[in-house]
Amino acid sequence: MSTSPGKILVAQGGGPTAVINQSLVGVVQEARRHPGIARVYGARHGVRGIVNEDFVDLTQETDANLELVAATPASALGSTRDKPDLAYCQKIFTALKAHGIGHFFYIGGNDSSDTVRIVADEAAKANYPLRCIHIPKTIDNDLVGNDHTPGFPSAARFVVQAFAGANLDNAALPGVYVAVVMGRHAGFLTAASALAKKYPDDGPHLIYLPERTFVLDSFLADVKAVQERHGRCVIAVSEGIHDASGEAIAAQLSSQVERDAHGNVQLSGTGALADLLCEQIKSRLGIKRVRGDTFGYVQRSFLGCVSEVDQREAREVGERAVQFAMWGERNGSVAIQRCGDYAVNYALVPLETVAGKTRVMDDAFISDSGNDVTDAFRHYLRPLLGSGLPQAHRLRATPVAKVLKP
Amino acid sequence: MSTSPGKILVAQGGGPTAVINQSLVGVVQEARRHPGIARVYGARHGVRGIVNEDFVDLTQETDANLELVAATPASALGSTRDKPDLAYCQKIFTALKAHGIGHFFYIGGNDSSDTVRIVADEAAKANYPLRCIHIPKTIDNDLVGNDHTPGFPSAARFVVQAFAGANLDNAALPGVYVAVVMGRHAGFLTAASALAKKYPDDGPHLIYLPERTFVLDSFLADVKAVQERHGRCVIAVSEGIHDASGEAIAAQLSSQVERDAHGNVQLSGTGALADLLCEQIKSRLGIKRVRGDTFGYVQRSFLGCVSEVDQREAREVGERAVQFAMWGERNGSVAIQRCGDYAVNYALVPLETVAGKTRVMDDAFISDSGNDVTDAFRHYLRPLLGSGLPQAHRLRATPVAKVLKP
Repeated sequence: MSTSPGKILVAQGGGPTAVINQSLVGVVQEARRHPGIARVYGARHGVRGIVNEDFVDLTQETDANLELVAATPASALGSTRDKPDLAYCQKIFTALKAHGIGHFFYIGGNDSSDTVRIVADEAAKANYPLRCIHIPKTIDNDLVGNDHTPGFPSAARFVVQAFAGANLDNAALPGVYVAVVMGRHAGFLTAASALAKKYPDDGPHLIYLPERTFVLDSFLADVKAVQERHGRCVIAVSEGIHDASGEAIAAQLSSQVERDAHGNVQLSGTGALADLLCEQIKSRLGIKRVRGDTFGYVQRSFLGCVSEVDQREAREVGERAVQFAMWGERNGSVAIQRCGDYAVNYALVPLETVAGKTRVMDDAFISDSGNDVTDAFRHYLRPLLGSGLPQAHRLRATPVAKVLKP
Repeated sequence: MSTSPGKILVAQGGGPTAVINQSLVGVVQEARRHPGIARVYGARHGVRGIVNEDFVDLTQETDANLELVAATPASALGSTRDKPDLAYCQKIFTALKAHGIGHFFYIGGNDSSDTVRIVADEAAKANYPLRCIHIPKTIDNDLVGNDHTPGFPSAARFVVQAFAGANLDNAALPGVYVAVVMGRHAGFLTAASALAKKYPDDGPHLIYLPERTFVLDSFLADVKAVQERHGRCVIAVSEGIHDASGEAIAAQLSSQVERDAHGNVQLSGTGALADLLCEQIKSRLGIKRVRGDTFGYVQRSFLGCVSEVDQREAREVGERAVQFAMWGERNGSVAIQRCGDYAVNYALVPLETVAGKTRVMDDAFISDSGNDVTDAFRHYLRPLLGSGLPQAHRLRATPVAKVLKP
């Protein structure tokens, strides 16, 4: 059993983001700079592509095209939701050995980091000298050991721009507006909507996170109070909101619940949750104009909404992954650590720290009322959104005195 | 009964757009330049604000703030869905007379132009010398006599960027993706999704417009064929698709149909149509990964997605409206006419030409198959989208020969 340290493999797993290709290109370019690396392979569609030997030779890519691909959202190599078990991992080894791969870089979220951990364990058991590095990525921002994760800032920027616009639309034609945002267990992306507020009466007026139990009666009371105060109400709701027993509100509605390979209920790609909440507001509060949107896949894939901070960091975690692999002696997961206001460092943390675990929002980020965020969260998020964020402006025109009904 | 030619009133009606405030600012700035105009009033929330004498004095606005408001989406004065009848119009006259208004500028779509027509008719009947100008605005692009309408190009740009991203996401994690786009009778905005295609196998692979009868069985056969060819399928569907009898597919699903003051069924603000189509694809084609998004209000309000061509033209229709009013002798509707590739002129057409009528897509813009657009449509739309449209790029990396299963 011989391996070549000069041949590396990179793959992308889980949901695509606006900047995951930055990390891919970071790996490829740093690897190509390293004299010890002769070949850079990419596996198509994640671990499934490894098992199927569906490899492309990224050593044969122009730098010009790599830069263009880096600026393109979604996973250029393709992705997968497969979660390898022991048999699956044995097939991965067989393929890696056959191609003489010595380093495996997997860009993904907590499910993908668990995949890397299993592959690394199996490699160790099989006494196969494989260096395994997980590179963080997820719009959910739910990896432990990270200040934040690449992909989250750009998705958050989309959410901010979407709510800033929806608030203006709702102010022009008043009513209740509910928008459902991605995030199964962690509310970071939904909470980002708070950064859309500029004036005190701007929406979102209410924010519901999966970190807090969702109680329909309390929700309706909150909406009623805002409607009475402002004559309108803009609401941000996480797709992952759940009742006291932990059951997702979205799952309670659907007779046919779809689950993925990880046992997760499908929350995205359906407007059912927004429609249910709107129906409750209409029927129980008697409000006529109630509209619901579900941001869906657009929030993670929209071409052209990106934070340049996110782009830079996503590139760096890819570069650093190769540097850790070539100069270090350990497997691990690259983690972003905030070391200034605003500045970051990158560390290699044990795979066990990240794998399969879920980070949620700190209590300090959530208001005591449970339906808003704190200034601590705003301060945390603002630098991640990048520069040039569009701003909303209002007329200041003075009212004209009434003549007929003064 | 005396009126002052030196006092004008401007208002905004119907659904907000990304550039409707450009038209507002065009009116205000051009009016303030005109020595014959002493006061520029704005009515809050359209005709409702006139009836309620809810006026602001736009003569007292800084140019700096007007420029910032112009770049802000949605209706800065507020909007309304009210459609005035005779009694309503008499109240409008009473308020206009009481304030000595001589010119009425109303920025809106075909419902709003009908409002302007009724107000102008009532003014004529009452022998009240009121100059009434309709300024075009609608993301639906459905005003007759116009090459296109302000607001449509920016919304189209959103749709292009959204589909370009959704196509990449779908290519990374293959399956069927359905996105529902606004457009009750006219399919222009849904058709814009075609401009997201770059490579021959890119989505959207299928486009369904309200200009063609929607037949569920044909739809499913189309999806099946694309899925078999590409292993995935991206679909653009207009919210206004209907059966042979003209009944909206969305309306067939809902037990409680909501109608607005114009008798229109509510199509937006619900995910029901996307969910129904996804359910049909899952159950009847046996495809597992099927996801549906409804772009909803985000497509018309997203802060920061705008065509600079649209911005410029929206500003100009406002400026020209004042010029037509001050130098012409007629009521009318400002219309955009294409006079070059690409260049436009503005004309004042009779209100009767535009009011209450709906323009739909030319047959020459729709493919014979009925589920795609033609190059004539692409050529029509491309210059409207503006510059700097983000592009998607692919890896060109060469495949690696298989070792285990060559």
